[in-house]
Amino acid sequence: MVDIATRVWNHKWKIDPIVRSLIDTDFYKLLMCQSVFRQRPHVQVTFSLINRSTQVRLADLVDEGELREQLDHVRSLSLSRGESTWMRGNTFYGKRQMFGAEFMDWFEQLRLPPYHLEKRDGQYELTFEGSWPEVMLWEIPALSILMELRSRAVLRDMGRFELQVLYARAMTKVWEKVECLRTLDGLRLADFGTRRRHSFLWQDWCVQALEEGLGGAFTGTSNCLIAKNRDMEAIGTNAHELPMVYAALTDTDAALRQAPYDVLAGWQAEHDGNLRIILPDTFGTPGFLAGAPNWLAGWTGIRIDSGDPATGAENAIAWWQSRGEDPRDKLVIFSDGLNVDKIIELHAQFRGRVRVSFGWGTMLTNDFIGLVPDDALAPFSLVCKAVAADGRPTVKLSDNPNKAMGPVEEVARYKRVFGVGAQAGVEVVV
Amino acid sequence: MVDIATRVWNHKWKIDPIVRSLIDTDFYKLLMCQSVFRQRPHVQVTFSLINRSTQVRLADLVDEGELREQLDHVRSLSLSRGESTWMRGNTFYGKRQMFGAEFMDWFEQLRLPPYHLEKRDGQYELTFEGSWPEVMLWEIPALSILMELRSRAVLRDMGRFELQVLYARAMTKVWEKVECLRTLDGLRLADFGTRRRHSFLWQDWCVQALEEGLGGAFTGTSNCLIAKNRDMEAIGTNAHELPMVYAALTDTDAALRQAPYDVLAGWQAEHDGNLRIILPDTFGTPGFLAGAPNWLAGWTGIRIDSGDPATGAENAIAWWQSRGEDPRDKLVIFSDGLNVDKIIELHAQFRGRVRVSFGWGTMLTNDFIGLVPDDALAPFSLVCKAVAADGRPTVKLSDNPNKAMGPVEEVARYKRVFGVGAQAGVEVVV
Repeated sequence: MVDIATRVWNHKWKIDPIVRSLIDTDFYKLLMCQSVFRQRPHVQVTFSLINRSTQVRLADLVDEGELREQLDHVRSLSLSRGESTWMRGNTFYGKRQMFGAEFMDWFEQLRLPPYHLEKRDGQYELTFEGSWPEVMLWEIPALSILMELRSRAVLRDMGRFELQVLYARAMTKVWEKVECLRTLDGLRLADFGTRRRHSFLWQDWCVQALEEGLGGAFTGTSNCLIAKNRDMEAIGTNAHELPMVYAALTDTDAALRQAPYDVLAGWQAEHDGNLRIILPDTFGTPGFLAGAPNWLAGWTGIRIDSGDPATGAENAIAWWQSRGEDPRDKLVIFSDGLNVDKIIELHAQFRGRVRVSFGWGTMLTNDFIGLVPDDALAPFSLVCKAVAADGRPTVKLSDNPNKAMGPVEEVARYKRVFGVGAQAGVEVVV
Repeated sequence: MVDIATRVWNHKWKIDPIVRSLIDTDFYKLLMCQSVFRQRPHVQVTFSLINRSTQVRLADLVDEGELREQLDHVRSLSLSRGESTWMRGNTFYGKRQMFGAEFMDWFEQLRLPPYHLEKRDGQYELTFEGSWPEVMLWEIPALSILMELRSRAVLRDMGRFELQVLYARAMTKVWEKVECLRTLDGLRLADFGTRRRHSFLWQDWCVQALEEGLGGAFTGTSNCLIAKNRDMEAIGTNAHELPMVYAALTDTDAALRQAPYDVLAGWQAEHDGNLRIILPDTFGTPGFLAGAPNWLAGWTGIRIDSGDPATGAENAIAWWQSRGEDPRDKLVIFSDGLNVDKIIELHAQFRGRVRVSFGWGTMLTNDFIGLVPDDALAPFSLVCKAVAADGRPTVKLSDNPNKAMGPVEEVARYKRVFGVGAQAGVEVVV
């Protein structure tokens, strides 16, 4: 029976909004936002959308009017009472009141700042400027809107059953992965797929399928809205934007060299336990670990987000051992370019030697590879990064030179300051 | 938004009925029913369920109480006004008022007669006795109820996402078939899958997927309820039960030999055009064609339902040629054991030599092969046949000795009368 009121209501929508909540974002964004709100609230930043997959001509695929409508809709959002209650009342990583009263009062009043949108060479130039704690919250909605508008554009002319079979095939792909992964003893895996998802509903489906299929091996999702709606753990710690902005704000090479550790010293003052996860690759992992103060070796774990993951984990193990730590007490979180084969391989290599966890992104929530002609739904590499802070350009080196960002002369300077030599390039697919 | 009234209403159901309409049956059943109603209304028949796949122990899988509830529900059904209107007002095979007023008046009053149900050796013995036009209408609901109760039994303990992925996989299988078949130029194909369907909703899905995916190559469905609901053509002509019962009622070998032709003489008086389809294999095709009167060669086509289909079609072509008919004007309907490979092969072999059409059954509406452990959802060979008429046993020889039915001595007599020699056995899978 059709619910007439529902149908009429649905017809009244001017658009079908892609992002319907300020907490349809990654948990670590909120953690970092609070950190920035407390420590660097007045820094002015610029975030820019960067499509590394230039063959995907987004501006040809996605209508500018639709994109503006979706972005405008995000600007109309504010934290709902239930969302605020969830953030204030929930236990995150075993801790109550993770988000303080002052931050929550601010967040409840927040509207996202304006955006700047232009077309150039078949791509959108989408930038956000303003105070860091506000602008940083644009990253995830901007990415998920563009990903989903691209999906919609490709799906537009498909028949009803053709569409159902497309999703049937995609569901089957996800479930085949579940069937592989659930044979792994001691697996721990979370969804990190918000930013590159095919669509919100699809991410929601994938996450629930993982929960049913993996049981206790599924540890939660980085997506706060899904975590709230589905009563799951919200997962995440921190990201490159903190050291990138902190570094950009320094005036001397010595201060620059110290910046990544300053970030983590601040983090240590705020968080303990499983939130003390080092992200070492912003300016190259080897130099970061070699120069790290000893208190960092006492942290819970490390997240490996670029370069060859096995090498990264071996280096981390060797580093902990060199600092007198037992790697078996330590957590290694793999979060870069994961798919089932890679998860199985890393799980086999490191299980029992360290505690292992996987933050699975694009190939969980956007594996439509091979499902439509010309692979027009294949995931692609879209990012939204801090490119400037208080008028100075940011730099990211990463452990993969193909992921490096920033003006050439600044990249050279950072490489010198952080002692980064030759790096092996790894193709950035997603 | 949940429609509360719908949810409460659904909770009030005592059972989830499998067969909800007297026209959730094959179109040819209704055509034959009218024919029997007009010509042999007082013949007393017995129909029996026969599970040729004895390894599927239906009585162990399916609860007797549930089976009785479903069968009882069918006995509570009567033709609705809309169903009657559809039968009275519709054009079938280009003809208006296919179902006469007298038959419709009777059908509107009809309730299905009682059933007899016992368990023996892990199987159900399900029989129906009474007047032929009433009892014959039990065949399809009895089969679809048992098929779907078996599906439900296998699915009972599956998780929500596991179930969704199961159907996703089954949908993908159907769509892959569609993608193969739509490359065939000039294909004509109808759904004949009611009796062996996985479930009603699944048949409904498959039929709609064929309609979208095959376009004009999809000619309709044998299922009257689906044809009515989805505004499709209802497809079908006649079946073995007519010659089987007519033959059983004869007193002499000479009358027996004549019985299959008598059936078709009666049919010719009622129907023309594409409804004049010979089903030649009840007592062996070669003898039937050799002894057929010349007016039968003038009929529109032939349906090949047992034996090797290519041989059957070649024999039909040779027969038409021997009778001075041009096979290119004739229709060959393949309806036995079809799957995509077989359809492609037969289409290639006969296209341009005759008009070809396919009546696709089990492997359209019940291909769950390989989708659950132990292949517990694989289709199996369940039939419901007239086994006696006015106290005399019926016999079916078919072109495949593995499909033969009847008491041994009667089978021998029929073989003698119809001149059936050695036959090549073909495995009966579904």
